[in-house]
Amino acid sequence: MIAVMIAGAVAMFVSLVCTRYLITFFRTRGTGQPILGKEDNGPEHHMMKQGTPTMGGLAIVVSAAVGWMVAHLRPNLAFSDQAMIMWVGIVVMAGMGFLDDFIKVRKRHNRGIFWKQKSYITLGLSMLLAWWLVSSTDVSQTLSITRATFPGWHLAMPVFVVFTGVMIWATSNAVNVTDGLDGLAGGSAMMGFLAFTIIAYWEFRNPAVYGDVVNPLDLAVLAAAFAGGCAGFLWFNAAPARIFMGDVGALGIGTALALLAITTNTQLLIILICGINVMEAGSVAIQMGVFKASGRKKRLFRMSPIHHHFELVGWPETTVIIRFWIISGICTASALAIFIADFTRVTDNL
Amino acid sequence: MIAVMIAGAVAMFVSLVCTRYLITFFRTRGTGQPILGKEDNGPEHHMMKQGTPTMGGLAIVVSAAVGWMVAHLRPNLAFSDQAMIMWVGIVVMAGMGFLDDFIKVRKRHNRGIFWKQKSYITLGLSMLLAWWLVSSTDVSQTLSITRATFPGWHLAMPVFVVFTGVMIWATSNAVNVTDGLDGLAGGSAMMGFLAFTIIAYWEFRNPAVYGDVVNPLDLAVLAAAFAGGCAGFLWFNAAPARIFMGDVGALGIGTALALLAITTNTQLLIILICGINVMEAGSVAIQMGVFKASGRKKRLFRMSPIHHHFELVGWPETTVIIRFWIISGICTASALAIFIADFTRVTDNL
Repeated sequence: MIAVMIAGAVAMFVSLVCTRYLITFFRTRGTGQPILGKEDNGPEHHMMKQGTPTMGGLAIVVSAAVGWMVAHLRPNLAFSDQAMIMWVGIVVMAGMGFLDDFIKVRKRHNRGIFWKQKSYITLGLSMLLAWWLVSSTDVSQTLSITRATFPGWHLAMPVFVVFTGVMIWATSNAVNVTDGLDGLAGGSAMMGFLAFTIIAYWEFRNPAVYGDVVNPLDLAVLAAAFAGGCAGFLWFNAAPARIFMGDVGALGIGTALALLAITTNTQLLIILICGINVMEAGSVAIQMGVFKASGRKKRLFRMSPIHHHFELVGWPETTVIIRFWIISGICTASALAIFIADFTRVTDNL
Repeated sequence: MIAVMIAGAVAMFVSLVCTRYLITFFRTRGTGQPILGKEDNGPEHHMMKQGTPTMGGLAIVVSAAVGWMVAHLRPNLAFSDQAMIMWVGIVVMAGMGFLDDFIKVRKRHNRGIFWKQKSYITLGLSMLLAWWLVSSTDVSQTLSITRATFPGWHLAMPVFVVFTGVMIWATSNAVNVTDGLDGLAGGSAMMGFLAFTIIAYWEFRNPAVYGDVVNPLDLAVLAAAFAGGCAGFLWFNAAPARIFMGDVGALGIGTALALLAITTNTQLLIILICGINVMEAGSVAIQMGVFKASGRKKRLFRMSPIHHHFELVGWPETTVIIRFWIISGICTASALAIFIADFTRVTDNL
């Protein structure tokens, strides 16, 4: 537990300092996030956000890495292969986001050069990452909700790799879609990381039930470090935001969340833990589906992702953010309750 | 666990419906919270909140009671004497707050008729409540932080009653002081109730360590019901608030938090769990102390409670709220980490 606390506290502190530094750095250079204007189908009143620095996600990833490493000063915690692969994956995906952010800021337009190719590139990277993780570590290849008594589906390795690859890709993109209002993506991700901290730590404490989860303590430390990183970032990202996380943040934390779900063997629980991201990405898919099916005539929402719909319906921005946080909190709490209810069902029958 | 989930879900649903109803009810009657204006030492820009309905705390208390009762449909959960006494205490304290709110709204002034006497009345009620709880149930009379290995201090019954009485009074007043920005008191209280849900449930699952905690499952259900009630209320209380909780809410949830700390035998942990409330109430005490000690000349903060200080320093209201929530989250997470670290220290030595 001490290692988990160290990771969270150090990451939060480093994140506070880094985010503060990034704000000054970008402010003095006058480089900010280009905002979608009316011609790009973005809500008009968001134009006032023009010029707010972006790429704050750098602080989250860096601080989480520092927190995770510092926690390894504790004698009982070893660097696990699994976590090393996870870090490579997170850094590569965040790096992709960084490139995109960098080009956007340079070109002063909301769409980076990779706009069309990015989807394919991140999908390819996700697949590679899933394959690497599954083939070279002892991660469980059974798709499951909570690992204890809920039915799990054992898949053949190629199918499992494809499934988890898609999961990484979908999660990172869903977080990216969610990242449209101040603090929305950061706050909901923080709750997700807290949930995975509890799940991984619980697995660590109960090896009799979760025996085939590899090195769960290291996973708990990693999750806590990301939760701390998000908290420090949120300090400045809270409405009205002084910095945005950018694609570097969204792809980085999305990848981390998906990898945690895979390694803690709660792959299907992520649908609930990232419920708000599923809702956001789902709204985009449904909007596009209805639009195309109706011959480019009908729109189900006034605008997608759905947070813009509620803004246009008349909810103040902070109301949308806080209500979405509440939904996110309910989803996360439900996921934890299911996880623990399932555990108690097993142990009561032991 | 199912009972805990039922309590939280039912309370949240009832709270959403009740709060919605209260907003319409008070709106149509045109009765709202009188706001402290400049002449009363309140921040000027808060005048725009004039007319927002108050007494939303009624929804929290009622919905928590309904959620708690419905959860008792589960066969393994009995009504405990302890919880019954807690409910009487919560209702009486909330009732005091209601009276005060009612008079304020009637008189259209921020200070109810009880303004001066209220402190003494609530202190007396808190003492009576502590005495009743301690004398007629098997609640532990050892002051402790987390009950497992941390040193606890066994006090003689009268001393223990005075201490816990002061605790109930201080907590309910501290929540009341915190309740000055949209969603601040409700959000931080929700985190506190979630923490007590986890603590009580953990105590229920580990009777070997927490044997002398009476009926912890019922306490977990009560805490979850309040967390759900706060979540539902927060849906409408989020900035910009459409309703305030009023004294009925602040005194009710403050009393509930203190009683949970007493009955789960984590009396001293409440200092951390209610860290934001301690900070708020402390800022008022320090401000008054410095003001009096300096011969009514010096003020340490631009205004107390401290949330107004930060507003006057230039932080936007939402920034203050969300940063205070972050602090509250850190406090609550630290409290839980201490609780669990202490538990693992015991069990590892078993």
